[in-house]
Amino acid sequence: MRVLILGGDGYLGWPTAMTLSAKGHEVCVMDNYLRRLIAQETSSEALMPAPNLSDRAAIWKSLSGEAVRVVIGDCKDYRLLSEVFRDFQPETVIHYAEQPSGPYSMIDFDAAKRTLDNNLGVTFNVIWAVMEHAPDCHIIKLGTMGEYGTPSIDIEEGWLDVEHNGRKHTFLYPRQASTLYHTTKVLDTDLLWFYVRLYGLRVTDLMQGPVYGLSTDEADRDERLLLNFHYDDIFGTVVNRFLVQAVADIPLTVYGKGGQIRGYLNLKDTLQCVELAMNNPVEKGNLRILNQFTERFSVNELADKIQRVGNDMGLNVQAKSIENPRKEQEEHYYNPKHHGLLELGLKPHYMTDEVVAQMLEQVIRYKDRIDTRKIMPRVRWS
Amino acid sequence: MRVLILGGDGYLGWPTAMTLSAKGHEVCVMDNYLRRLIAQETSSEALMPAPNLSDRAAIWKSLSGEAVRVVIGDCKDYRLLSEVFRDFQPETVIHYAEQPSGPYSMIDFDAAKRTLDNNLGVTFNVIWAVMEHAPDCHIIKLGTMGEYGTPSIDIEEGWLDVEHNGRKHTFLYPRQASTLYHTTKVLDTDLLWFYVRLYGLRVTDLMQGPVYGLSTDEADRDERLLLNFHYDDIFGTVVNRFLVQAVADIPLTVYGKGGQIRGYLNLKDTLQCVELAMNNPVEKGNLRILNQFTERFSVNELADKIQRVGNDMGLNVQAKSIENPRKEQEEHYYNPKHHGLLELGLKPHYMTDEVVAQMLEQVIRYKDRIDTRKIMPRVRWS
Repeated sequence: MRVLILGGDGYLGWPTAMTLSAKGHEVCVMDNYLRRLIAQETSSEALMPAPNLSDRAAIWKSLSGEAVRVVIGDCKDYRLLSEVFRDFQPETVIHYAEQPSGPYSMIDFDAAKRTLDNNLGVTFNVIWAVMEHAPDCHIIKLGTMGEYGTPSIDIEEGWLDVEHNGRKHTFLYPRQASTLYHTTKVLDTDLLWFYVRLYGLRVTDLMQGPVYGLSTDEADRDERLLLNFHYDDIFGTVVNRFLVQAVADIPLTVYGKGGQIRGYLNLKDTLQCVELAMNNPVEKGNLRILNQFTERFSVNELADKIQRVGNDMGLNVQAKSIENPRKEQEEHYYNPKHHGLLELGLKPHYMTDEVVAQMLEQVIRYKDRIDTRKIMPRVRWS
Repeated sequence: MRVLILGGDGYLGWPTAMTLSAKGHEVCVMDNYLRRLIAQETSSEALMPAPNLSDRAAIWKSLSGEAVRVVIGDCKDYRLLSEVFRDFQPETVIHYAEQPSGPYSMIDFDAAKRTLDNNLGVTFNVIWAVMEHAPDCHIIKLGTMGEYGTPSIDIEEGWLDVEHNGRKHTFLYPRQASTLYHTTKVLDTDLLWFYVRLYGLRVTDLMQGPVYGLSTDEADRDERLLLNFHYDDIFGTVVNRFLVQAVADIPLTVYGKGGQIRGYLNLKDTLQCVELAMNNPVEKGNLRILNQFTERFSVNELADKIQRVGNDMGLNVQAKSIENPRKEQEEHYYNPKHHGLLELGLKPHYMTDEVVAQMLEQVIRYKDRIDTRKIMPRVRWS
């Protein structure tokens, strides 16, 4: 299958490109290095160095024999994106090309504006490029579980059947996110759903929880293919921050009460999910929404787990609650459903002690690169 | 009160400016003539000529003695909008500054992109200008009843109490609109609600139905103060199109089955509603949503009414169903609530035969300016 991966330099984009090309698909990646640029601007560089995307593709080809086509450019540029669609004629487009940091989107006007313009602008262009140049192309869009927020009722898989005053209607599940970044993904979903209804696009929107992990079959083949590991307060997820703190002898920074529950998944499962969505496309005129995570933890449970495994490995890991820099519920009901991907065949990789230990070992190898100035919250919106 | 009106040259903006200044408020209007420009680009000019905004303000001052401050510029330009907020320090901002045509937004990529960028970009800038320069300012935002679409359950006033699996949550009422323009207003609401939750803005979002009418106390004082009356398929509402067709001896063009029901209101009531919202601001941290219409008609009922009144006046009015250029439900359940504004004191002006006759008489006075090429649908998305 011809697969176009937008945001192909990212934490998810690059391993997706490798795994799909390893399986014989024809892969084209496009990226404008926005994440790398913002990481530099905010002193939030990843722990391990990463070659540029063209070099990554060259290394991957030398190891696997598989060619990944690389386009360096901005998906907000409709002229360029149109050309790519026209030339490559993708059968699937995987749209990861968004500014991915919640905290970044909360810094100030400029960061918020850049997040809104980039994320909504790219989604809009993808919709039109598909309509104009590849109308049968299946759009796989990365959403986030954060779109739903933490409502006090069960979170269904994208849609909600409402009975009201004796009548019924099925709505897109109502969403309310807790950062502007997550809100842009709500807007993306609104926009995709509109064009699906009006023009019969075929779209899968993956509502993904936080992803962890540095190991995939392809990335494990060469150190130069290592994935982007951000551990700072802006791009780093709570898992990555805790792993680095455990290694750097800094108490794990639990934000507030630590009762924030989210659905997590292993990077290996993200790759499975995207491939399952791709191999099982939806019919035209459908927006399929899949909640993409495999298990739920509170921040306190994560801290306990990393503390226990770290201490078993001889580290000295402690946890400490700090004032929450975010405005979020620290104790809440959380019962999101996630059947769709399991029904498509997902075989989860859970966060076992062994998986945590492997991640800690990888961080230990890069211990001397840890910049402790990146670790405490620098962005506050509480 | 100091009131900043964005989109002050519009069909609603200019009469709002006159009425509020007549009541002693300090009024500043801002507009970049986007509607006039698009009307020229699409050959959709209004029936009556209108002086530019500075001239309108000068005429109004000569008649009333009241000065309306005029800023010609683009609200998407944050530097300029910031300056206006900083200098004028509005206590209320009335945000009408959006590309207002559903059909326009469905023409092509460029029209859609312009609609999305303008509408969401201006709303974003208004939010930030308030946060940075006038944090107590009450934002009155013009939404649309079209945000709700035509669900098969009752439409509540902005919020929906959902009971699901034995638990309860109140959500922003789920929305699904039928043009990109209406969808941008859904996105606006999402964005406003996010910043209200996070930063405690005070916002009233007016979900307005189609407005009709050419008469206000102030506009009636001088022909040069006449309001923008668009009767084409792009900017003209169904009421205006029918009025002009009745006068021009063209059968009223009912789109499809004509069972499309909407909630309508008289322009005089829009002015009342906005003033009521302004004089009864919400507390900080609140998004108040008010459904702004006074009575409901189907397209067939409107056609019947205008036909009957027109024929009583000696016109020869017929109605004819034509193929629907739009993708919309032509027969549907529709039961939207609208208590909030009545509770604030709204005294409705209904669409009586006399009101219809007055509108027809006004159109008859400008009969020789009717351009029949503007009357049939030029934009299709069915």
